[in-house]
Amino acid sequence: MVEACICTIGDEILIGQIVDTNSAFISRELNKLGIKVSSIVSIGDNFKEIVNTLEILTEKYPVVITTGGLGPTKDDITKNALLKLTGTDEMCIDNEQLGVIIDICSRRGIELSDLNRDQAMVPKSCTVLVNRKGTAPGMFFKTFSKNSLLFLLPGVPYEMESLMPNVSELIVSNLKTEQIIHKTIVTFGVAESLLATLLNEWESSLPPQIKLAYLPNPAIGIRLRLSVYGGDKRESVDLINRYSNELYGILGDIIYGESDDTLERVIFKMLINEGKSLSVAESCTGGKISSILTSISGSSGIFKGGAVVYSNESKIAILGLNSEIIEKYGAVSKECAEEMAIGAKRVFNTDYAISATGVAGPNGGTPEKPVGTIWIAVAGDGFVVSKKTIFAGDRERNTIRFSSEALNFLRLTLKTYISIIH
Amino acid sequence: MVEACICTIGDEILIGQIVDTNSAFISRELNKLGIKVSSIVSIGDNFKEIVNTLEILTEKYPVVITTGGLGPTKDDITKNALLKLTGTDEMCIDNEQLGVIIDICSRRGIELSDLNRDQAMVPKSCTVLVNRKGTAPGMFFKTFSKNSLLFLLPGVPYEMESLMPNVSELIVSNLKTEQIIHKTIVTFGVAESLLATLLNEWESSLPPQIKLAYLPNPAIGIRLRLSVYGGDKRESVDLINRYSNELYGILGDIIYGESDDTLERVIFKMLINEGKSLSVAESCTGGKISSILTSISGSSGIFKGGAVVYSNESKIAILGLNSEIIEKYGAVSKECAEEMAIGAKRVFNTDYAISATGVAGPNGGTPEKPVGTIWIAVAGDGFVVSKKTIFAGDRERNTIRFSSEALNFLRLTLKTYISIIH
Repeated sequence: MVEACICTIGDEILIGQIVDTNSAFISRELNKLGIKVSSIVSIGDNFKEIVNTLEILTEKYPVVITTGGLGPTKDDITKNALLKLTGTDEMCIDNEQLGVIIDICSRRGIELSDLNRDQAMVPKSCTVLVNRKGTAPGMFFKTFSKNSLLFLLPGVPYEMESLMPNVSELIVSNLKTEQIIHKTIVTFGVAESLLATLLNEWESSLPPQIKLAYLPNPAIGIRLRLSVYGGDKRESVDLINRYSNELYGILGDIIYGESDDTLERVIFKMLINEGKSLSVAESCTGGKISSILTSISGSSGIFKGGAVVYSNESKIAILGLNSEIIEKYGAVSKECAEEMAIGAKRVFNTDYAISATGVAGPNGGTPEKPVGTIWIAVAGDGFVVSKKTIFAGDRERNTIRFSSEALNFLRLTLKTYISIIH
Repeated sequence: MVEACICTIGDEILIGQIVDTNSAFISRELNKLGIKVSSIVSIGDNFKEIVNTLEILTEKYPVVITTGGLGPTKDDITKNALLKLTGTDEMCIDNEQLGVIIDICSRRGIELSDLNRDQAMVPKSCTVLVNRKGTAPGMFFKTFSKNSLLFLLPGVPYEMESLMPNVSELIVSNLKTEQIIHKTIVTFGVAESLLATLLNEWESSLPPQIKLAYLPNPAIGIRLRLSVYGGDKRESVDLINRYSNELYGILGDIIYGESDDTLERVIFKMLINEGKSLSVAESCTGGKISSILTSISGSSGIFKGGAVVYSNESKIAILGLNSEIIEKYGAVSKECAEEMAIGAKRVFNTDYAISATGVAGPNGGTPEKPVGTIWIAVAGDGFVVSKKTIFAGDRERNTIRFSSEALNFLRLTLKTYISIIH
């Protein structure tokens, strides 16, 4: 199996001012080609270290991909390191990239500076991967070392991402790769250790060529990833399908999807199939539930709107809540959550509405309603259902889990009511 | 200067299903101690690789911190690797951690399983860092290698974060560390290359011991970080203050804060000082602006609520917009943005309101209003101001930049109007 190494360059990563999201993206893309990322290394904007590291990595790995270190400002020195490594003393202007740079500057109303122009300078021995989203070109060195294909990509995520199709194409045309078959099953609502206990017996029955991994994520739930490396492709697919089918039998409704499915995507599929619309009323989640739902392109066909009713007055003014309900039961209560859902359904004129009201923390908790308490309700035609959960986390984590919990409750409710209708 | 290496363990990072946010957090904490992270390495859940990598890293770096590889499920093998490396053949139960595990299981209503109990097993030679937020204990090996302090931390971010104060304390009491002085100035609204041009002359005047870095972030803007390593502390602080003061003179209103300041925090400070309240009306940003504003603990004192008016009907129903305005000018227009802000100010009964309406993409663009177009308005007592900007990005990026642009416009507007009032 072909192994690869990703090397991110930039002091900003080492001092912790930037989180490296590029490596995860590149890993997923390489995985699709049957290339295994064996290591990810982050180094600083240091000439010697870049030279040394690239020398070592290109000796060891058949594919090396760097990101970062190509920006217009003075802290970027990767190109000079490359120049030293390749032994090519000459740089040349790439006219296609220069065209993009001129275009970007003119669209932004910026005068073309020398710094901008220099971005189009590349070592002569490389193949340029023209960056149409930004000013720094990607570079491919086929003959950098006899052992390795070397790619240099810009550090800005969406620029790097736009170049990955070229990278994949160049790898496939230059290397013989072996396959990996993954299948990922996505679950929500059961903790990792309980899931492990539920699956203990089944896991022991897995043949040795199948590997199972638990991938917990507070927003998505726990993904169960089955992997088979190498072997006959058809047999591997059959094997992985057989065992994933068994998972459905064991876990039932805990499973909500596969691969890149998220709660919001699954909900949208259900609503689109039924031709139904949705609205949101949220308090403690502060817009997060609406924000998650609208992250899906095309969501305007389903999602009509949301009310972020942070204050009690806004719950009354926007959603028409009865002030007596808030006085009698408090804003974090079954009654308030249900009235919020009913109110949102009415004012946004939708088929379904979901509401969430709770205590995200760090302040506002009481012995009866501690930090982490969330009431969720779903209203539909002629019904409203609600649920309380208590989480233990900080404000940020609680907001994420509250939102996911609300979406999961909506998923399960929709499933039940849609099955009753049909 | 003491150097450190962070090693993240877990296949989930190498196959790209998890983004490593831990390293950035740990780097920032080590930085505060004057420790420089020289390298970050990610490896898989592979016994041999863990053993080899830890052997190499603890030879090379005075401080090595690992995260991950300590979960309850079968893909975690770090502890066994440690057992092999330390040569200690014995594991023992840590009773304090076991107590936490029992407590967590009972609070979650889960029966204590063997998997849970095993989490409290640790090599005898380590100092346990009791994890009160989760089941996997942290571990500290002082005598693991003669060159290095080795820390093993759990991979779940908020569990790891809760143990970092202990880690810092143990490092300080075991090592002599040298200082780094950083000062970060935060800017918004000017592209990196233009900023570099503006600062070119000033940058050339910097003494050699000061390093300047540009750290762009679509949500926050561009942070300018000045650093001085080593030297006399007082002199370094004086030097860095002198040069950062010069930056204020050159950049003026482009600068909105320092260190960890964000647009939302700066806005909250201004509003709290004035005793004023805020509401939001947003369309294309889908709840993101409200979500950012409510990420601040205590925001309920200022932020009264937000309307996510995704459909035209909801703009009319919730904010009371005149349907003729939408028909005549379209939902993405100066007129609609201004009416939205005025409507939000009225229905939420706040001193100020901000609105955003635009085309996030990938669909919905027209030649006059291409994808990336955003109209923003701010309404206050007796005034409403608005602004159009066009960005070039994908849906996710546009949503982030729209939101930040809106907050920055609010910041500048507040600054102007508050200065008029006083």
